[in-house]
Amino acid sequence: MTYSVSQLLTQDITLQPLEIKGWVRTFRANRFIALNDGSTINNIQCVVDFENTDEALLKRITTGSAVHIKGNLVKSQGKGQNVEIQVTSIEILGDSDPDEYPIQPRKHGFEFLRKNAHLRTRTSTFSAVMRLRSSLSFAIHKYFNENGFYYMHTPIVTGSDAEGAGEMFKVSALDAKNPPLTKDGDIDYSQDFFGKETNLTVSGQLEAETYAMSLGKVYTFGPTFRAENSNTSRHLAEFWMIEPEVAFMDLAGNMDLAENFMKSVLSYVLEHNREDLEFLEKRLLDEEKTKPQAERSEMSLIDKIKFVVDNNFKRVSYTEAIDILKNSKPNKKKKFKYIIEEWGADLQSEHERFLVEKHFKCPVILFDYPANIKAFYMRLNEDGKTVRAMDILFPGIGEMVGGSQREERLDVLKEKMKALDIDEKELWWYLDLRKYGTAVHSGFGLGFERLVMFATGMGNIRDVIPYPRTPQNAEF
Amino acid sequence: MTYSVSQLLTQDITLQPLEIKGWVRTFRANRFIALNDGSTINNIQCVVDFENTDEALLKRITTGSAVHIKGNLVKSQGKGQNVEIQVTSIEILGDSDPDEYPIQPRKHGFEFLRKNAHLRTRTSTFSAVMRLRSSLSFAIHKYFNENGFYYMHTPIVTGSDAEGAGEMFKVSALDAKNPPLTKDGDIDYSQDFFGKETNLTVSGQLEAETYAMSLGKVYTFGPTFRAENSNTSRHLAEFWMIEPEVAFMDLAGNMDLAENFMKSVLSYVLEHNREDLEFLEKRLLDEEKTKPQAERSEMSLIDKIKFVVDNNFKRVSYTEAIDILKNSKPNKKKKFKYIIEEWGADLQSEHERFLVEKHFKCPVILFDYPANIKAFYMRLNEDGKTVRAMDILFPGIGEMVGGSQREERLDVLKEKMKALDIDEKELWWYLDLRKYGTAVHSGFGLGFERLVMFATGMGNIRDVIPYPRTPQNAEF
Repeated sequence: MTYSVSQLLTQDITLQPLEIKGWVRTFRANRFIALNDGSTINNIQCVVDFENTDEALLKRITTGSAVHIKGNLVKSQGKGQNVEIQVTSIEILGDSDPDEYPIQPRKHGFEFLRKNAHLRTRTSTFSAVMRLRSSLSFAIHKYFNENGFYYMHTPIVTGSDAEGAGEMFKVSALDAKNPPLTKDGDIDYSQDFFGKETNLTVSGQLEAETYAMSLGKVYTFGPTFRAENSNTSRHLAEFWMIEPEVAFMDLAGNMDLAENFMKSVLSYVLEHNREDLEFLEKRLLDEEKTKPQAERSEMSLIDKIKFVVDNNFKRVSYTEAIDILKNSKPNKKKKFKYIIEEWGADLQSEHERFLVEKHFKCPVILFDYPANIKAFYMRLNEDGKTVRAMDILFPGIGEMVGGSQREERLDVLKEKMKALDIDEKELWWYLDLRKYGTAVHSGFGLGFERLVMFATGMGNIRDVIPYPRTPQNAEF
Repeated sequence: MTYSVSQLLTQDITLQPLEIKGWVRTFRANRFIALNDGSTINNIQCVVDFENTDEALLKRITTGSAVHIKGNLVKSQGKGQNVEIQVTSIEILGDSDPDEYPIQPRKHGFEFLRKNAHLRTRTSTFSAVMRLRSSLSFAIHKYFNENGFYYMHTPIVTGSDAEGAGEMFKVSALDAKNPPLTKDGDIDYSQDFFGKETNLTVSGQLEAETYAMSLGKVYTFGPTFRAENSNTSRHLAEFWMIEPEVAFMDLAGNMDLAENFMKSVLSYVLEHNREDLEFLEKRLLDEEKTKPQAERSEMSLIDKIKFVVDNNFKRVSYTEAIDILKNSKPNKKKKFKYIIEEWGADLQSEHERFLVEKHFKCPVILFDYPANIKAFYMRLNEDGKTVRAMDILFPGIGEMVGGSQREERLDVLKEKMKALDIDEKELWWYLDLRKYGTAVHSGFGLGFERLVMFATGMGNIRDVIPYPRTPQNAEF
């Protein structure tokens, strides 16, 4: 019988001898193999009877080599593990030349590992991060499934660029060097694959609204794109987004949903990924020891996650937030880069972090923003100057969720689009939702990688997605 | 308390009066509203006390209008439902002008509904299809999660075009009209966003292999693309694919996995989507009545799904299949469009359907195909002429799954790539998997929309994805 490392470490194994396949993490004293197969952060110790093993074979047991081991599971004599395998036979499935193999049994810099992203999940850190990413994904699907939501796949290639969430990538099957031209000398997209100009989507929200207005509660979870030249540790050109959309739900319901959702998903990993989290918590602690005291987190990774799960999110209107910020120490002492002078100012990351980390010391939901700093589809309040928007701010990360109640009134929406020069013909189908059986509805967007960063404590967004797409980089 | 239609129809409701919000499907005799909110295929009947309701209000209760109803749930006097709501108050949330609303309470052609894809889930057929699509998605994630697989997001934008699964779409942020040129007059992609030419992915397999070779068992479930001008009822330019990949698993294990997976996922919808399936089964029956007897299915929708769940998939080598086909009636009588003359022929859809529907009368796994009609990465058999490939063929649909054991031997893989003129530099990372700790591994790909077609009985792939992308069409 062949087992996984996870099974050997957590289950009662009675059938002996057993078999296991995996990769050698380390081999020390010509005797102790630390074997890993990806099923858990932990290795199983396999003890080789080196005196009765061929010398040439022993030499091939190197870091990164794939092996097939037969043996017996016994109580371990040594420290650090409860059980170990007494090896009766070992076969090398795939060698790994120790002089060439990039992943050595020592600390590698993350930048080096990004260049070897095809091998980086062979390290404990990245295997833990990617197991958590997987677990968070499942928790998201589970939450929505249990709460009566339908998963919908919104289109990736889109003919509309009306949402204006950011710069878009063009998608084309035309010969880029010699494209067909119109009489006016423009590119003739009517001859392109889709018969018109097409882009990669920046959001599935507008399409999700169409399904909410028939199926009631829906969500998307798919890739979205920004062609913005932001070479930072917080931006990707390709990232995954979760966007629920619910009919008959107002902004208060939206806040309840988002808070409940975040807590549920984070609870799931606290319950199911404890060992990975403990490893990552320790890693973060080690990393922070190299930083000046002021930059270190006040809470450990697991405590930070628990803090979100256990505490109510503080709900604060934009107007209240501006008051708090205007009167805050860093504003008065001009420590903010952008001084808050009056109502209407767009909040910067420094302001958001002040509110969350210094003032309220808990996740914060800001709502009712000035209309002119928010998107066209957000529900105008009766005051005529604010919209029913909300942003959820997390400690250390800043904005985690952005959402709103949507403008359900056809005339108000048309007026708004006109003012912003958005062509009604482009969004005829979106307007139809307001023409036929319109109703209050709301939703939000959550950047998945932000969530993975929060739950893993990783500081660079390139380290929480398998193959990051960033300016000048589409390797693998 | 506000309820969903599904709750009202299936749960014991004790808190009265209650509230419900939804859309009017029909309103007849100035009295009976059939109300739907997307939570189930079924409507709830709401009985209006028309003698005590304002005439002007009654006129606004039209198909497609959104309403907020208060009332009491009572045992129904009429046929066709167990319970109904006696309406005490009704508010129109959103009108729907009966002269303009495209979705009338009668049968609409699917082509018409494709043009109104933003409203088509307001019909019973499309709401059932999309609920099933959602349910199948969840069943897939659930299956893999329960079986120790990690979900990974493989990249959508890719710099590699080596897999050769089909024509690719180009992705670019360059000014298409005035792109920068190199000295030689070619487009200078080094100035493009990613610093090189990039495309939309045709498969996540190669990247999934990198994760299988560290995490053990992984799968992708994401969008893939083909820029092929196939304007058929079975092709999409953008479709979703499921691709598991498992280390230390050979082709036999791959067949076991695929069969177990398909059965598990289809069992899930049999259990969880019974009413939607019953509706779609009836729809299919009605549709088939318009066809000549010979073209009708021998089994009903649910029986066909059960048949797959309950029967072993027949495993047949390509060589055996060729023998069967060569000696078959349609081959001898030249009824096949492509006559099978000798070993090495590529099988066409007509041959696959003959094997599944006429000869074996069950799902069939064909394996060990000639090397030269399959992809470069498939494991060469010891005979030197066949590869460890498998295709799973389903009744009515044809190929549902394509998979293989992967070539794990560095020298053999390099030779194959050389023969096919695939640049080693392009796939250096893929070759690394064979250099460092290589091992037997296998996986398969399943076109998600094919599965949804099978489970819903829909005949056109454009009707099982929210917003289909096909030649000349990227609307919505």
